[in-house]
Amino acid sequence: MVEPEPTPAKPGISRRGLLGLAGAGVLGAGAGLAGGIAVDRFALPPSAAASPGAGTVYPFFGEHQAGIVTPAQDRLHFASFDVADITRAELVGLLQDWSAAAALMTAGTPVGTYGAVNGPYTAPPDDTGEALDLPAAGLTITFGFGPTLFTSADGTDRFGLAAQRPSALVELPHFPGDMLTESLTGGDLCIQACSDDPQVAVHAIRNLSRIAFGRASLRWSQLGFGRTSSTTTAQVTPRNLFGFKDGTANIKAEQSDVVADQVWASRDDGASWMHGGSYLVARKIRMTIETWDRTSLKDQEAIVGRTKGEGAPYSGGTEFSEPDFEAKGQGGAPLIAADSHVRLAHPTMNSGAQLLRRGYNFVDGNDELGRLNAGLFFISYQRDPAKQFVPIQMNLAKNDAMNEYLRHVGSGLWAVPPGASSGGWVGETLLG
Amino acid sequence: MVEPEPTPAKPGISRRGLLGLAGAGVLGAGAGLAGGIAVDRFALPPSAAASPGAGTVYPFFGEHQAGIVTPAQDRLHFASFDVADITRAELVGLLQDWSAAAALMTAGTPVGTYGAVNGPYTAPPDDTGEALDLPAAGLTITFGFGPTLFTSADGTDRFGLAAQRPSALVELPHFPGDMLTESLTGGDLCIQACSDDPQVAVHAIRNLSRIAFGRASLRWSQLGFGRTSSTTTAQVTPRNLFGFKDGTANIKAEQSDVVADQVWASRDDGASWMHGGSYLVARKIRMTIETWDRTSLKDQEAIVGRTKGEGAPYSGGTEFSEPDFEAKGQGGAPLIAADSHVRLAHPTMNSGAQLLRRGYNFVDGNDELGRLNAGLFFISYQRDPAKQFVPIQMNLAKNDAMNEYLRHVGSGLWAVPPGASSGGWVGETLLG
Repeated sequence: MVEPEPTPAKPGISRRGLLGLAGAGVLGAGAGLAGGIAVDRFALPPSAAASPGAGTVYPFFGEHQAGIVTPAQDRLHFASFDVADITRAELVGLLQDWSAAAALMTAGTPVGTYGAVNGPYTAPPDDTGEALDLPAAGLTITFGFGPTLFTSADGTDRFGLAAQRPSALVELPHFPGDMLTESLTGGDLCIQACSDDPQVAVHAIRNLSRIAFGRASLRWSQLGFGRTSSTTTAQVTPRNLFGFKDGTANIKAEQSDVVADQVWASRDDGASWMHGGSYLVARKIRMTIETWDRTSLKDQEAIVGRTKGEGAPYSGGTEFSEPDFEAKGQGGAPLIAADSHVRLAHPTMNSGAQLLRRGYNFVDGNDELGRLNAGLFFISYQRDPAKQFVPIQMNLAKNDAMNEYLRHVGSGLWAVPPGASSGGWVGETLLG
Repeated sequence: MVEPEPTPAKPGISRRGLLGLAGAGVLGAGAGLAGGIAVDRFALPPSAAASPGAGTVYPFFGEHQAGIVTPAQDRLHFASFDVADITRAELVGLLQDWSAAAALMTAGTPVGTYGAVNGPYTAPPDDTGEALDLPAAGLTITFGFGPTLFTSADGTDRFGLAAQRPSALVELPHFPGDMLTESLTGGDLCIQACSDDPQVAVHAIRNLSRIAFGRASLRWSQLGFGRTSSTTTAQVTPRNLFGFKDGTANIKAEQSDVVADQVWASRDDGASWMHGGSYLVARKIRMTIETWDRTSLKDQEAIVGRTKGEGAPYSGGTEFSEPDFEAKGQGGAPLIAADSHVRLAHPTMNSGAQLLRRGYNFVDGNDELGRLNAGLFFISYQRDPAKQFVPIQMNLAKNDAMNEYLRHVGSGLWAVPPGASSGGWVGETLLG
């Protein structure tokens, strides 16, 4: 009979946070973590069947968090959390534990042994195990802080953070047509896990949720199966569920000046702890695809302002040709209609504002009328939502011909702090 | 401005079925298909960014339907349909249209132009477009007929099929512990779409649903992100969301005697039209993973009867060692417990009955308590459910120690006819 050898207790990477938790008497499932998070000595080698490139590892530590300008991976598991009634020290402990676990998982390593650290055998496994044989598959884990972490809904300053809330971390306004569901909105914390293997992304969110037990709990979450944006020039432009290429004009990592100007927050923006961070907007957008599918190709293309096959602007050229909004067709009408999506979303129509988009297609089963519950889980990163996402979306919500086929049902905004320095933790610039 | 050239009307592959539908005055979204399904002359080449192997194409036509002994692909979109109040001829038309579309999509070809066949431009596109740049990615589309296609819930014989209902197409009994949701149960027809690219699988179900408009509508559906079984010896055994390897002892395609004996229906079984077909059982099984994750490694392994890391039976050896159910440990207790999953599911405990499993992990967001709505979408193929799935599941439902962590919420059984001969259609042996 094969039985794992006993593993002696060893100091955990983030013992401090866990001891803080234990001190508060909030143990529960955390008991299995009593020895802290440790590198798995039993970790198995990556599967031989893994496809080439599946071993891609993006560093967790660095100036910026990974998962923003990182080449958009194919799959997403996004999660929003509510923080429990804990102290500031316990919040710090959670962020330390999350960072330590994220550093392990993004390296393709379990968050602990699949057996227990202290045990060997009579405690729950530290790692849930479903990714044991899988490589990192480009996993990135990106953490964000919602407005309610700084100022609770009831106005209290739970963690002494209200004075450090960035002015860019606004409450998103109600946009015309919004049909938001409260249970798909907001959250004190968020985690974006992206990977080329969905099981790796799911494993990350599951284990981070488990580590948070008693300190934060899942508020809402979303799986996305297909990326809808490229974030580097080397990536082929993918298609959304309208069947159109999406993200042709997205900010690309190689555009270093644009990234610096539009994506990364600066210490000069007012919240110095956010220097090197960004702001994440998520919108769950249901598409009424059955109605769209009954719309003529002509109308579909006019609404988008691009051709369906090539993705070229309606003013001519190929996919990456700049749209010519002045070009006129027969009768003097603009070739790219005034209410087309490409025109209304273009930087020239929005005071130069751009977004780094990182959204995903989703299908959540079907509704009782037999329609697929499908759409776009929109994610964008920007330096200042009040100057970028908010005015662009207000313009679209008021004027975009595409609105007839869209329903915004979920929403959230989070401040995404800078990356952690080696051995540090995300949020250290705010709470350290 | 780039505009597709007009495409003259051309005879469709399945014009007969569509004309039948038009004759019944049920047009709706079907109008865009008025010219029938035609190979896309505008089809784009497979994406250069596609991973090696993504171009895998499994033939649609053949003795058996693909998607059964085919090497299990990574992703699933499963859909169950209710047939509308249509005639037998219209049902035939639907199956013809579905087969024609499936033959195109499994070859990596859209179900029509992304523009309209007759148009060029003022009709809806025949193909929804989101897979335009994607290769086949191993897509298989497998059709099944539920008990209610033969005998309606109210006892009527809508399509004159009652006499041909196979005795193997039983009503599944209530199993102890079943907590089925009516809206996740049954269905007149089912489609299993498997692919290594989830967008390709979603595209298939979406387009088949669209083609069915007015004739059949989605009853329930499920996405699965990770395969939980191998169906060939070359595949690495994957893990389920309990973190254990799953499907080690699954029937493999190479076991031709076992496949012939346990998977394929024979004309000698009583329904000659099912010769070369099989029977599909689907069970949506929610796993209470948070509770499982609090269970000790020792208990997890005892419940499964295998080690977590290697997947070896608790009686010793390695993953593919045969379990020794007689082996005793200290005190004379069996090493593989009497209520362990591996023992109860083993053919020797079930009169030799085996299943070809083809299930997938799923996560459908989270519930209001912050628990991931996660589990296993179990699919098995067998020659005779009454002799295979039903007794095995009855045994498990009564005795399996794992039941504490499982909740069966969805269920269905379908007769999966043999494959269609080239240019034919699935169901021709029953309805042709």
